[in-house]
Amino acid sequence: MRIDGTPYRAIWLAEDGWSVSIIDQTRLPWDWAVARLTTAEEAAEAIETMRVRGAPLIGATAAYGLCLALRIDASDAALEAAHDRLLATRPTAVNLRWALEAMRERLRALPPPERVAASYAQAAEIAEGEVATCRRIGEHGLALIEEARRGKSGGPVNILTHCNAGWLACVDWGTALAPVYRAFDAGIPVHVWVDETRPRNQGASLTAWELGKHGVPHTLVADNAGGHLMQRGQVDLCIVGTDRTTRRGDVANKIGTYLKALAAREAGVPFYVALPGSTIDWTVADGLAEIPIEERGAAEVTHVTGRTAAGEVATVALAPEGTPAANPAFDVTPASLVTRLVTERGICPASEEGLMGLYPERASA
Amino acid sequence: MRIDGTPYRAIWLAEDGWSVSIIDQTRLPWDWAVARLTTAEEAAEAIETMRVRGAPLIGATAAYGLCLALRIDASDAALEAAHDRLLATRPTAVNLRWALEAMRERLRALPPPERVAASYAQAAEIAEGEVATCRRIGEHGLALIEEARRGKSGGPVNILTHCNAGWLACVDWGTALAPVYRAFDAGIPVHVWVDETRPRNQGASLTAWELGKHGVPHTLVADNAGGHLMQRGQVDLCIVGTDRTTRRGDVANKIGTYLKALAAREAGVPFYVALPGSTIDWTVADGLAEIPIEERGAAEVTHVTGRTAAGEVATVALAPEGTPAANPAFDVTPASLVTRLVTERGICPASEEGLMGLYPERASA
Repeated sequence: MRIDGTPYRAIWLAEDGWSVSIIDQTRLPWDWAVARLTTAEEAAEAIETMRVRGAPLIGATAAYGLCLALRIDASDAALEAAHDRLLATRPTAVNLRWALEAMRERLRALPPPERVAASYAQAAEIAEGEVATCRRIGEHGLALIEEARRGKSGGPVNILTHCNAGWLACVDWGTALAPVYRAFDAGIPVHVWVDETRPRNQGASLTAWELGKHGVPHTLVADNAGGHLMQRGQVDLCIVGTDRTTRRGDVANKIGTYLKALAAREAGVPFYVALPGSTIDWTVADGLAEIPIEERGAAEVTHVTGRTAAGEVATVALAPEGTPAANPAFDVTPASLVTRLVTERGICPASEEGLMGLYPERASA
Repeated sequence: MRIDGTPYRAIWLAEDGWSVSIIDQTRLPWDWAVARLTTAEEAAEAIETMRVRGAPLIGATAAYGLCLALRIDASDAALEAAHDRLLATRPTAVNLRWALEAMRERLRALPPPERVAASYAQAAEIAEGEVATCRRIGEHGLALIEEARRGKSGGPVNILTHCNAGWLACVDWGTALAPVYRAFDAGIPVHVWVDETRPRNQGASLTAWELGKHGVPHTLVADNAGGHLMQRGQVDLCIVGTDRTTRRGDVANKIGTYLKALAAREAGVPFYVALPGSTIDWTVADGLAEIPIEERGAAEVTHVTGRTAAGEVATVALAPEGTPAANPAFDVTPASLVTRLVTERGICPASEEGLMGLYPERASA
């Protein structure tokens, strides 16, 4: 999508033809800077420190991380070591595993001298695949926004989203935000309620930033406000992304998603989840019982980073020194609370039948 | 309650016998300081800027604010002017109106020379009344914690609370936290999940502070986490305060309360609301239709104040410059989501019948 009029992606091959450029998302929304990854370790650290985040982008970054490892050593042992290092960066996202295993499987079959070129070709394919997937999610999701608009007597379609499932989380377009960009570009009046998304504030720092840069009307709210807004008829639909979807349609997404899904059901507001097929974990049925939830550090809750009036980025403590904090990073929204899933293949109910209808090749899995 | 072993209240008459001491809550949890109010305008500003907050404490502060006005001018006109100025400070809290009207009614009937002494006596009575009320809320609520403990095979009773309805919000004891302090003091093992309570972070800055100072085990969490914790069986009961309760048992409380009530119902976790009778607005039946919700400034959402590593209090921006933000300060939790109301007169269902059973004198109202 566009930044001040110029089209960008969230990851791309640098001009040198081998190193990898990313937008350093930990510096947003204050500084907008491109960072260069030159080793697999740098790629792994970029994932761990959330300089890149979002399931599709994590997968693409890990894929390029393997390329960077093979450039130095294309042996089986180096391939395995880089695979394992990159896989260990984040526990919840399924795209990470999917991208790394697809790469490893193809590269292992090749003689080491052929692996570097093949890896770059495959990483590019993975990245292009994510773009095409998100573009299609946007096309399908657009119908849901048009439907909401037909149900209104006037005014913009009010869309609530949580966290950042925009183009910054993907390679381009985004998942949850792809339909929003499509609708906006098509001239449909839209307005986005942006959940702040504590504790890492991805809504405030990323979603508000990318919507603003593209020109989409939006309003930031505390995570606490969504229930109230839905209760008062100020939300026409919710749309969020997902880090992992079970074959029955349960979704693990950023902590707090579940609360919004409960409020949407209570208010009769449709709650849509947008996802690429690569996010579906076909080995898992029951999200609550089977998806491990990443517990992150307490400092993310007790401290926050922002920009001072003097323009400096500063981290401040919000709680008394030594306050214990818990920080589950994701929660699971059961399929029963999800109105529809929006995938690159179309829209379906959040159920095994629904997903099998769109991905019939999985029926025999 | 205690601060580092010394008993304190949230408001008290200063040693000079006429000015009013408060704990400046905007400086917590970094600095703990007593501020002195010498005029009605200072009292009004203390309420507006949230140096004092919480329905019972706002009422007591307004009452003392009237005393400070009358010291300077005890005429009818001055009484009216101070009443109106203090009443305009916060739109949602009903205690404010209740305390000011009780004061005005009694004082108007007196000749001006008698008003100053009478006003101090009445303000003290209001403050003492709040303490006695909270103490009784604690006694009644203790039974609910004991009940939760009997339902467990071991471990502490895990209690989730939102915002600060502790002794800092009242004159002493608190409403929602009064039963927690009672239980803790009685040796019942308790552990409190403290919602951060964005955008003003009262959970992080006030509840975590006062629980810590009194020694009650607690863990701070982002507001987004409560649904997940309840879904996973990590919460035995929720207890919150309320700024305004309708005669049918709907409760207006800090924004985000409603989301926790939805999650509690879904998980089968009891959701209790603790309140003094003064918080009940008998003129209002339907909370959603009839309670005006205060909309506060956008900067509370886009910026946050904390303490830097160097020990300085700093305000930092969290969102891109110019990001629009909405900031509804309260939401309404319908009575149907409230398991029980805990009042100074006992525990009752959240319904007109329930409240009339405890406050039969209101049946003719």
